[in-house]
Amino acid sequence: MTAIAPDGLLALPEDAQDLLFREARTANTFTSEPVTDEQLRAIYDLVKWAPTAMNAQPLRIVAVRGAAAKERLVPLMAEGNRAKTAAAPVSLIAAADEDFHEHMPVIWHDPDARDNLAASPGRAGMARFNATIQLGYLILGVRAAGLAAGPMAGFDAAAVEKEFLGDGGRRAIAIINVGRPGPGAWFERNRRLEFEQVVTTV
Amino acid sequence: MTAIAPDGLLALPEDAQDLLFREARTANTFTSEPVTDEQLRAIYDLVKWAPTAMNAQPLRIVAVRGAAAKERLVPLMAEGNRAKTAAAPVSLIAAADEDFHEHMPVIWHDPDARDNLAASPGRAGMARFNATIQLGYLILGVRAAGLAAGPMAGFDAAAVEKEFLGDGGRRAIAIINVGRPGPGAWFERNRRLEFEQVVTTV
Repeated sequence: MTAIAPDGLLALPEDAQDLLFREARTANTFTSEPVTDEQLRAIYDLVKWAPTAMNAQPLRIVAVRGAAAKERLVPLMAEGNRAKTAAAPVSLIAAADEDFHEHMPVIWHDPDARDNLAASPGRAGMARFNATIQLGYLILGVRAAGLAAGPMAGFDAAAVEKEFLGDGGRRAIAIINVGRPGPGAWFERNRRLEFEQVVTTV
Repeated sequence: MTAIAPDGLLALPEDAQDLLFREARTANTFTSEPVTDEQLRAIYDLVKWAPTAMNAQPLRIVAVRGAAAKERLVPLMAEGNRAKTAAAPVSLIAAADEDFHEHMPVIWHDPDARDNLAASPGRAGMARFNATIQLGYLILGVRAAGLAAGPMAGFDAAAVEKEFLGDGGRRAIAIINVGRPGPGAWFERNRRLEFEQVVTTV
């Protein structure tokens, strides 16, 4: 484990806590400052290390950046998500790849995993579940790059899959606008549940 | 945004990157050092700030720590998960609360949200999806506390719900062993997919 100064009960330093959790907010407006492929690569090369079941890593990302591609995406968003999706320098379509098992011979140690998963009725659910965990990692990874994330569930998933995800078994699970926050980017922060409402001990 | 020194393309300092992503590993053995309620509270009070749709926060956690409670949990785990679950100082049952909408009047600004969600056939899916994103946050939050996480999907979910989650619409989505890593805690690290295999740009 890395030699990191403990900060009270947490090992993560307070400024890093702020960057990822406390000061970071879901952005609803963005500046025009581009988000580069190098930034996306740095984010991916960080979050890729976080765990998934059987190291399956089913999350796939289509980064929608070009004006023509944005014009194809925006009409597929729920109405309240259109203006911000048009304005964001990049919008990440997060997808669960139901054919993740094809990579198993490289990413997992059991030589039978690919064939076992190919025959498993639970594979699609495993893809969606683990890609959704990775979505949590990805949102924090965007923040780790000093960028604001604006995750959205309001869009026509079937239409997004047809338009952007091809025939390869990829299911759209969320779309995340990414960029620098613009004027009036934040809504008022809503309350969080108390520890006692969420965690019980037995 | 916090004044944090940029580290190349990422704003998160390198030692924090290591703590959360690069050096942290899924633990399969644990020391007997306890994990306290204060530590669990510090983890929750950090990860609670990360976003969910409509601020729904459907994740619920049952922390199984006592010997009697552990004896009820261990037989419900898949065989390969039993020894480590017995050894972990605490095992967190992560659940999706399908009745999260009851909290809406406090956690969301739309006064109609509770009733609209009460009538929505999509509520259970929304609970599972958002609790799973929160599971990603939680795994990183455990690491932020300098602890090792061992997330598991291999258990009898229906039996865990019956034994630990009562009748309130809570669905078990994962169980995470938490503690200090013991001897031989790590398996060999498996390969991650390359950026080009995961991210495409349009």
